[in-house]
Amino acid sequence: MIHFNSDYLEGAHPAVLERLVSTNLEQTIGYGCDPYCDLAREKIRAACAAPEADVHFLVGGTQTNTTVIAAVLRPYQGVVSAVSGHINCHEAGAIESTGHKVIALPAENGKITARQVADYVEWHRNDESVEHIVYPGMVYISYPTEGGTLYTKAELTAMYNTCRKYGLYLFIDGARLGYGLTSDAADLTLPELARLCDVFYIGGTKVGALFGEAVVIMNPALKRDFRPMLKQRGGMLAKGRLLGLQFDALFTDDLYFRIARHANEMAYQVRDIFVSAGYPLLFDSPTNQQYPIMSDEELAILGKNFGYEYWERVDATHSGVRFASSWATTQKQVDALRNAVNALEK
Amino acid sequence: MIHFNSDYLEGAHPAVLERLVSTNLEQTIGYGCDPYCDLAREKIRAACAAPEADVHFLVGGTQTNTTVIAAVLRPYQGVVSAVSGHINCHEAGAIESTGHKVIALPAENGKITARQVADYVEWHRNDESVEHIVYPGMVYISYPTEGGTLYTKAELTAMYNTCRKYGLYLFIDGARLGYGLTSDAADLTLPELARLCDVFYIGGTKVGALFGEAVVIMNPALKRDFRPMLKQRGGMLAKGRLLGLQFDALFTDDLYFRIARHANEMAYQVRDIFVSAGYPLLFDSPTNQQYPIMSDEELAILGKNFGYEYWERVDATHSGVRFASSWATTQKQVDALRNAVNALEK
Amino acid sequence: MIHFNSDYLEGAHPAVLERLVSTNLEQTIGYGCDPYCDLAREKIRAACAAPEADVHFLVGGTQTNTTVIAAVLRPYQGVVSAVSGHINCHEAGAIESTGHKVIALPAENGKITARQVADYVEWHRNDESVEHIVYPGMVYISYPTEGGTLYTKAELTAMYNTCRKYGLYLFIDGARLGYGLTSDAADLTLPELARLCDVFYIGGTKVGALFGEAVVIMNPALKRDFRPMLKQRGGMLAKGRLLGLQFDALFTDDLYFRIARHANEMAYQVRDIFVSAGYPLLFDSPTNQQYPIMSDEELAILGKNFGYEYWERVDATHSGVRFASSWATTQKQVDALRNAVNALEK
Amino acid sequence: MIHFNSDYLEGAHPAVLERLVSTNLEQTIGYGCDPYCDLAREKIRAACAAPEADVHFLVGGTQTNTTVIAAVLRPYQGVVSAVSGHINCHEAGAIESTGHKVIALPAENGKITARQVADYVEWHRNDESVEHIVYPGMVYISYPTEGGTLYTKAELTAMYNTCRKYGLYLFIDGARLGYGLTSDAADLTLPELARLCDVFYIGGTKVGALFGEAVVIMNPALKRDFRPMLKQRGGMLAKGRLLGLQFDALFTDDLYFRIARHANEMAYQVRDIFVSAGYPLLFDSPTNQQYPIMSDEELAILGKNFGYEYWERVDATHSGVRFASSWATTQKQVDALRNAVNALEK
Repeated sequence: MIHFNSDYLEGAHPAVLERLVSTNLEQTIGYGCDPYCDLAREKIRAACAAPEADVHFLVGGTQTNTTVIAAVLRPYQGVVSAVSGHINCHEAGAIESTGHKVIALPAENGKITARQVADYVEWHRNDESVEHIVYPGMVYISYPTEGGTLYTKAELTAMYNTCRKYGLYLFIDGARLGYGLTSDAADLTLPELARLCDVFYIGGTKVGALFGEAVVIMNPALKRDFRPMLKQRGGMLAKGRLLGLQFDALFTDDLYFRIARHANEMAYQVRDIFVSAGYPLLFDSPTNQQYPIMSDEELAILGKNFGYEYWERVDATHSGVRFASSWATTQKQVDALRNAVNALEK
Repeated sequence: MIHFNSDYLEGAHPAVLERLVSTNLEQTIGYGCDPYCDLAREKIRAACAAPEADVHFLVGGTQTNTTVIAAVLRPYQGVVSAVSGHINCHEAGAIESTGHKVIALPAENGKITARQVADYVEWHRNDESVEHIVYPGMVYISYPTEGGTLYTKAELTAMYNTCRKYGLYLFIDGARLGYGLTSDAADLTLPELARLCDVFYIGGTKVGALFGEAVVIMNPALKRDFRPMLKQRGGMLAKGRLLGLQFDALFTDDLYFRIARHANEMAYQVRDIFVSAGYPLLFDSPTNQQYPIMSDEELAILGKNFGYEYWERVDATHSGVRFASSWATTQKQVDALRNAVNALEK
Repeated sequence: MIHFNSDYLEGAHPAVLERLVSTNLEQTIGYGCDPYCDLAREKIRAACAAPEADVHFLVGGTQTNTTVIAAVLRPYQGVVSAVSGHINCHEAGAIESTGHKVIALPAENGKITARQVADYVEWHRNDESVEHIVYPGMVYISYPTEGGTLYTKAELTAMYNTCRKYGLYLFIDGARLGYGLTSDAADLTLPELARLCDVFYIGGTKVGALFGEAVVIMNPALKRDFRPMLKQRGGMLAKGRLLGLQFDALFTDDLYFRIARHANEMAYQVRDIFVSAGYPLLFDSPTNQQYPIMSDEELAILGKNFGYEYWERVDATHSGVRFASSWATTQKQVDALRNAVNALEK
Repeated sequence: MIHFNSDYLEGAHPAVLERLVSTNLEQTIGYGCDPYCDLAREKIRAACAAPEADVHFLVGGTQTNTTVIAAVLRPYQGVVSAVSGHINCHEAGAIESTGHKVIALPAENGKITARQVADYVEWHRNDESVEHIVYPGMVYISYPTEGGTLYTKAELTAMYNTCRKYGLYLFIDGARLGYGLTSDAADLTLPELARLCDVFYIGGTKVGALFGEAVVIMNPALKRDFRPMLKQRGGMLAKGRLLGLQFDALFTDDLYFRIARHANEMAYQVRDIFVSAGYPLLFDSPTNQQYPIMSDEELAILGKNFGYEYWERVDATHSGVRFASSWATTQKQVDALRNAVNALEK
C-alpha cells in the first residue's frame, strides 16, 4: 500500500531527525529561549531578509492560526477568509472559540481577491447598521491555498495594499509555504512574500519537520506580548528547542526549499499521470496537492493499493480526490501510481 | 415626519406603562424572584398551555439569543441558522463571542428547510474529517423571519422532527412572535409552536413592552441552571419586576395578541398601498414588516416625510426598503402614507 | 414589612418615571442615537467638566463591567481587583466568561492600595516566569466599595498615578457613585474623580433610575469602537432613549445628587440607631449601606418586620447584615426601625 | 555547568527516541488514529487496569489542562484549585481564556482537602446570592503537587467521595505522575488513582518523552466528543503517531516507572545533600523536585556551576529554590552537587 493521502504521513526529513538525536542529551532551558531557537530565528530572518522580524515557534497549524488571530483582533472584529479557507472549514471552530467570527467570502480556485475585500469593507462601512455587523479586522489567506493554488505577486500586492488602505491586517497561512514558493508557477520570493503581509507562518509539519510552524511577525504593531498569548493558548512547548533544532536544520543549506521542490516535481508527475490518462482536475494546482476527478468505481480499484484523500462528490458517480506528495515521496512510488492509473484505463 | 422604520420607535403600550407607574413605589426583591414575575410566568405558561415550562425574562433580543445559545451548546458545537438569520447578520458577532460558530445555510424567503438541516448533518457525519468540522448542536429559526415570512405548521413540524432525529435542539427567536401568530397566514397557535421546539422566546420589546423578552424552556434537559447563565451574561435585571409587570400586562386579556393583530392590519394596508401602486416586494411578508422595492428617486421623495429602513440594493437605481407597523401605528399614519405613495405615481 | 435589603427595591424616582411617561408616544430612532441620549450625554459631560468624554448608556452593572473590561483588555491580560470586588464575587464569572482572569488582591475595608498594585506589577515583571503569569492590564475599584467605604482623593490619586506609571488602565465602578460623592466623608467631586481614572460609570439603577448605567470614557485611547462592543455584549438597548431620558432627568437640577444625599442622611440615622444601641459595624461605611453585627436571635426578631440582606457570619451566634437606604427611603421607615431596634435592647 | 532547573532540560529517553527514529519513514494516517496510538492506548489501559477508559494524546500540559477543563465544565461553572495550582499560577490565564473562573482555595503543603471543597460547596449553595457566584463544577488537583508533595490514598479517597457527593468532577493533573507513583511516600497504585477520579493525565514531557501527555477519561459521562474539543483547542497533532510511539515506548517493560524511580532516587540524594548541610526545605517533597532554602549569597556561589529554578523569596537574605532531577540525572551530577554544597558550608 502506497499512501498519497497527505504530506504528513511520514516522520521528519532525516537531517531534521538527526539534529534531534545528536542533541538529545544536552541541557537547555525551555519555552523557546534556548540557543537553538535563537539560531533558527536568525536563519529565518535571513531567509526572509527581515532582520527586524519577530519569529515564534508553535507546534501545529490550528494552534498557530488561532493564536495569531486571537492576538491580533479586538473582540468585536472578525477575520475575512475564503469560504474554503482552512480556518473556516477544518479547524473545528477554533477561531470562533476565541470569540471571533470568520467572515467567509466566496472563493474562486481557492482564492479571494482584493476587490472582494474592498467591496466587503465598503459595504460594511456604509451600512446603516454598521455597529450591528461584525467588523473586519484582518484578512486570512493561504499560500498555497487549500486547493493547492497560488496567489500571484500582483494579486498579493493588491490584497496587501487594500488591507493597508482599510486598516486591516493581512495574515498568510503558510502551512505548505515551501511547496508554494518552489512551484513552477510562483512569481514570489520569501522576502517578497514577507513584505506583502503583516504576519505569516512557515509550515514545518508538512515540509520536513516532525512538527512545528514558525510565525514571522513583520508588522511591529503586532509584536507586543506575543509570548504570553502563546503560553495562554497552549502553544509554548516546554522543550522549545525541539522546534528550534528542526527549523535550524530546515533553514541550513536551503533544505526547506530543496525538499519542497522535490515534492513539487513528484506532484507534477502525478498531475501528468492523471491528465495524460484523461482525468479532469478539481483545481489547477501547481503545488504538491493534486486533485483528479475519477469515477467511484475507478477510485475503488485504485484504493486497493494507493491511499488518497476523499475531497468532494462531483456527481452521482464521480468524486474529486487528493493525491499529495511530500519531501518523502519517491520516484518508485510515483511510477507505481502511473502503472496503476494506466492499467485502469484499459 | 412619520416613521415606519421599525417596530421599536415608541415607548410602551399605555396599559404596560400604567402597570409600571402604579407599582412604582412598591418594594419587591430583585432579580426576577418577585411576585409580579411569578404572575407573568403563570400567565405565559397558561398561554402556552405548558404548565411545566420554565420562563425567564431578559431585556433584549441579542442578549436573549446569546444567553440561550451559550447555555445550550457544548464548546465544540455551532448553531445552524439561515444566512439571513439575525444571529448571523445583525448581532455584531455576539454568538461567536461566546465561542460558537454560526453555521449559515442558504435561505429562501428568509427560511431554511428541514431537508437542508438533514443534509448538512448527514454530510457532516459522513465526512472523513468530521472531527475537524464544527458539530451542529442546535437549529435557530425566527418566527416571523427577518423578512417577515412565516414557517407553516408543516414546515416547523418537519424541522422539529429532523432536529429530534439528529439530536439537535430547536430554538425559535420570537422577537416578533405576536406579529407572526396573529398573521392571516399563520396556521399555528402559541401552544402548538411551543410544542414544536425545545426553547423559544416571546418578544416584548417590539410588541408593546418598553423592553423585555420572555424565554420559554420547553425541554426539561435545558432547564438546569439557566439563572446563573443569565447572571453571567449580564441578563439578570436588578429590578426584575419591571419585566414581570410588563409581561403580566401583555398577557392580561390577550393584550399581546390584540396589539399585534392591530399592527398586522395596518401592515396589510401598507402592503396594499405599495402593491396597488405597482411596486414589487422583496419578501412576501404576511406580518408587520413590508419590503417594497422602489426607485432611489422615489425613495428620496418619500423620505422627506416618511421614515423607512434601508434594506438592500436591488439594482443600480432601485432598492428594497422596510416599512414596519407596530401596536402604535395609527390609521391616520397609514392614510398619510397612502396619499404620499399615490402622489408618487403621477 | 419595611425593606432595607438593598437600594433597588422600588421603581424609579417619580421625576424619572414622569419623563418616560410624557414622551411615551414619541417616535425616535433606536440604539442610543436619539436626541434624548444626546441631551443626557451633554449634561453628564457638563457635570463631569469633561467636554471631550465619550458617554454610553447600558442597562445594568454586570453588563457594564463586563463590556468595559472586555473592551479594554488584550486577551492575555487580567484585571486587578479587591478580593471583595463585585466582579470577583457577585457577577457569576462574567469577567472570566470574556476570557480574563480577575487578579484578586487582599482588601482592607473594601479597598486596595496603590502600593499593593505596584508591588504586584513589580513582582510579576521580575518573575522568571513572567510570560506564564497573567499580565495585569487594568485596575478595577468601586466607589463606594462593596462595603460602603470610600477611597480618599489622596488614595485615588496614588492609584491613578501608579496605574499610569505601569501602563495599567484604571476603571471605577460607580454603581452607587451618587451615594459616594454626596457622603460626608467624600473629599472628591465628580470632575475630580473623572480625571483620576481612564473610564468609570455613573450608576442609575441604584440611584433613582428604573435601570441604567452611564459609562464615561475619559481616556481617548479607550474610545474607539465601543459601540460595536456594546452591541456584541447585548448591551445596546433597542429603545435607547429610555436610558437617555432617565439620565437626562437625573442630571437636571442636580436630581441625582439630591436624592443620593437624602439616602445618605437616612443611612446616617440608620447607623446611629445601631451604634447607639451598642452594635458593632462590619464596615465603617459613610454611605447608604450600613452593616451592623447582631445576634442571630435579634436578627430573627427584627426580621419579622424589617427586611435586610444577610452579609456574612461573624461567629457562631452573630452575623453581619446590610441595611441599605435609597432615594425612596422615608423618615417614617427609619423611625420605625429605630423603635424596633430600641425595643430589642430591653 | 550542570542544570537542575527542571525535569525538561534534555530531550527524550533514548528508548523513546529510538522508536521515533526506527519508524520515521513509515506512512501512517494522522490525528491519533494510527496503529501506534492504538497500541499505546491499550498499554495505558492495561497499566491503569481500566479496559473501558478513553485515552487521548496531547502535546503539553497547559493545552491538556485547558482542553479537559473546557470540555467538562458548563459555561457558568468554575474549577476549584489550590491557590498554588498550576492552572491558577502558571498557565497565563489559559483556563479563564476558555471562560471559566479558577476558584482558588488556600493550600497547605501544595494540597487542598476534601473538607475545604465541601465547605466551599455548602457555603455557595446556602448563600442567598448563589446565582451570582460562580458554581463549582470540578476540582483540579496535581499529583504530585507543584511543591512535589503527594495526596495520600485516604486524602484522595475523601476528595473523590466529596466530589461525587456534591456532583463535582475530579481531575488529576499528572504532569509528573511517574515521579509521584514511584515515590517512597506513595501509598497509591496507578489503577487505584485512576479509580479515584473522573479524568486524569499521565505526563510524558517531564518523564522521558520528547513531549506528550496522555489523558485518561474514566467517567463515561465525560467521554463524548472529546476529539472535536481536542481539534478545536489546537491539541490534535497532525502526526499523531509521534505521541503514540512515545507512550508505547514508555509503557513497554515499565520504562515510565523505572525512569521515574531513578529520578526520585537522585532526588532523595539531593534532599539529603541539603538537609545534611543544614538547609531547611520549602516543601517536604518526597518526589523529584526539592526546594532548599539558602542565603542569596550561597545561591550566587552555587549558581556559577549549577542551574536551579528560583522559587520564592523567604526573607531579606534567603530564598527558596528548586532542584529537580529527571530520568536523565546522573550520579555524577549529584555527586558534583554534593561536593559543591559541602564546600559552601566551610
